[in-house]
Amino acid sequence: MSLPFRIGVTRGRARTGAIDTPHGRILTPAFIPVGTKATVKAVLPESLAELGAQAVLANAYHLYLQPGADVVDEAGGLGPFMNWPGPTFTDSGGFQVMSLGVGFKKVLSMDADTARSDEVIAPGKARLAAVDEDGVTFTSHLDGSKHRFTPEISMQVQHRLGADIIFAFDELTTLVNTRRYQQESVERTQRWAERCVTEHRRLTDERRHRPYQGLFGVVQGAQYEDLRRRAARGLAGLDLDGFGIGGAIDKQQLGAIVGWVTDELPAERPRHLLGIGEPDDLFAGVAAGADTFDCVAASRVARNASAYHPTGRFNLVTAANRRDFGPIDPDCTCYTCTHYSRAYLHHLFKAKEMLASTLVTIHNEHFIVGLVDRMRQCLVDGDFDDFRSDFLGRYYSA
Amino acid sequence: MSLPFRIGVTRGRARTGAIDTPHGRILTPAFIPVGTKATVKAVLPESLAELGAQAVLANAYHLYLQPGADVVDEAGGLGPFMNWPGPTFTDSGGFQVMSLGVGFKKVLSMDADTARSDEVIAPGKARLAAVDEDGVTFTSHLDGSKHRFTPEISMQVQHRLGADIIFAFDELTTLVNTRRYQQESVERTQRWAERCVTEHRRLTDERRHRPYQGLFGVVQGAQYEDLRRRAARGLAGLDLDGFGIGGAIDKQQLGAIVGWVTDELPAERPRHLLGIGEPDDLFAGVAAGADTFDCVAASRVARNASAYHPTGRFNLVTAANRRDFGPIDPDCTCYTCTHYSRAYLHHLFKAKEMLASTLVTIHNEHFIVGLVDRMRQCLVDGDFDDFRSDFLGRYYSA
Repeated sequence: MSLPFRIGVTRGRARTGAIDTPHGRILTPAFIPVGTKATVKAVLPESLAELGAQAVLANAYHLYLQPGADVVDEAGGLGPFMNWPGPTFTDSGGFQVMSLGVGFKKVLSMDADTARSDEVIAPGKARLAAVDEDGVTFTSHLDGSKHRFTPEISMQVQHRLGADIIFAFDELTTLVNTRRYQQESVERTQRWAERCVTEHRRLTDERRHRPYQGLFGVVQGAQYEDLRRRAARGLAGLDLDGFGIGGAIDKQQLGAIVGWVTDELPAERPRHLLGIGEPDDLFAGVAAGADTFDCVAASRVARNASAYHPTGRFNLVTAANRRDFGPIDPDCTCYTCTHYSRAYLHHLFKAKEMLASTLVTIHNEHFIVGLVDRMRQCLVDGDFDDFRSDFLGRYYSA
Repeated sequence: MSLPFRIGVTRGRARTGAIDTPHGRILTPAFIPVGTKATVKAVLPESLAELGAQAVLANAYHLYLQPGADVVDEAGGLGPFMNWPGPTFTDSGGFQVMSLGVGFKKVLSMDADTARSDEVIAPGKARLAAVDEDGVTFTSHLDGSKHRFTPEISMQVQHRLGADIIFAFDELTTLVNTRRYQQESVERTQRWAERCVTEHRRLTDERRHRPYQGLFGVVQGAQYEDLRRRAARGLAGLDLDGFGIGGAIDKQQLGAIVGWVTDELPAERPRHLLGIGEPDDLFAGVAAGADTFDCVAASRVARNASAYHPTGRFNLVTAANRRDFGPIDPDCTCYTCTHYSRAYLHHLFKAKEMLASTLVTIHNEHFIVGLVDRMRQCLVDGDFDDFRSDFLGRYYSA
């Protein structure tokens, strides 16, 4: 009863591998596009497969609120519901429970001094999400209704959603929390992970007729080396199929933090770096031993007309693209670059046409998925470091 | 130098046929999906071909304003610009020039008494579009800038857009105009059509290296039989590749009006009924001798969650669909019905996801395109009237 993971080559901390899920194999390192609400925004699943996506990651919090985990369960699970035959992940919803409450407005603003308590506070706002030892009471960002997640409820929701890889329920912290709060949080996340494992076993047994779902624990600990290492060692002692690396991570420290964590984790289990998708961060994550990644950026920036390019991102709405009849990137093999000009994409954005988002999302996801695919090949070939310096030199030169 | 049209079977006024354009054959009767701004909203061209669309109709007014006819020309024309390899149409922009000016707000409100003059007036608003013998001066609905279309300019714009079938520049009238105004308008439209033919010939000669574009004249005359017949006879005397039937048409009179017009038109030229796409209207149009149709409805109502069904349109957002794991229509062979449940589509609309529009547009366009395809087959088989009464009996029974 576990998720088979086979390691290919190892280069320092970095490695290649293959995760065998009930819905197919994921060759790692791999970037996993995000389909928060059971759809990668504006893109057909067939387009997603064609652009090279191996799996999709949805969000338990969003699907719990809309359409409800029972509806997805009755549809046969996340994959059949959204017409995605391949592997699926669900994030636990811990991050969203605590970050998307009424009034939260994206920027987490826990006061470093007052955040000793177990409450997440937005300045000038009423309590949004109240954390206690047992779980979190939170307010729906959709209609303001009250809800409660505990580790057990998160497992029940994620078992109903039926993704191949699910995450233990963890607590969100930020870089501005006090060290004391971070430590308490790491300890609570460990206790919650233990409860998740117990509930996961019970549900796995109860739902034997369903394909096995792999459970990943989530390593927190913010920027503190000792907390990160302690958190990783604690989770390494549990019966988990893999590990997520979560929390607010300062860009400059990303490689170091992932390295501390992977040093402590068992090599024979896969590690997923949560919510990371910028090119330099992906290189740093792979070099430090992360196997899979997810991020909304490729899709979100596409909807704002920003296209990835080997020499850096650029905006298609600028006047320079109005009469540019070449593709986003002449060397790119994606559907968008082989069928459409910058001039057409520019027009679609100016005309506020939905197809603009579809086409640039396809390109951007292809770019990021393909970038991590190429890292995998370079690990096999032994030229990862050369590729990293070449790519980043061009990408960030402008 | 004309657009080959071959008639198949004839049943009363109705007939089947085939229009051979430089970009492929259109079997008629045929419904042509609308891609106003060089995109059928939310749908990839490959999906459009797969759902059975034979051609796409774009709008000269919208493309003149954005991205500009010169940009489309430089891209190689409408088809290459939007990645649609098949036949294309452009509407002349006459309707939009006069109906989309600043303040016009969809509902045309020409005062029956004051509309003797050559001006289109919105109540309480400044002049929007001023019609004179030479053409129309109008205000962009995008930025309020002033523009002028004449028959010659419309031909120049449509030649740059490069569609296989283009329409003569005509004047918009409404059911509330005075009869005297309608008569003046029909006479002006005839004079403009003559100028369009002259300019079209000149441009065709000047642009010999480009594929031939067929020019359709537009029959106006509102609800008046004598004006419609006179308009049709007038245009029949010109060197046109086909005919559009335009203007405000009362639903009850649609069959009669199209019949008056087709009685007067040469049988050997195709007729396009502009802006008509509801099932009963399509049956009436085909029965009265129209060959092709276009309408935004299939796509527009899809974006409002309304799905076509053999027993009538229904809204996917209603609670009844939340746990309905069957498709929109189990007998439908479209991509959406063979891959997605009503429950999933309901969820996408509730979650405000773009894919909702994509999937329901695919179904609706497939429904209407397929309906007219079936009319064509029934004309061949000789059971058009049975199909019409069966279909309409079920569709409008609720």
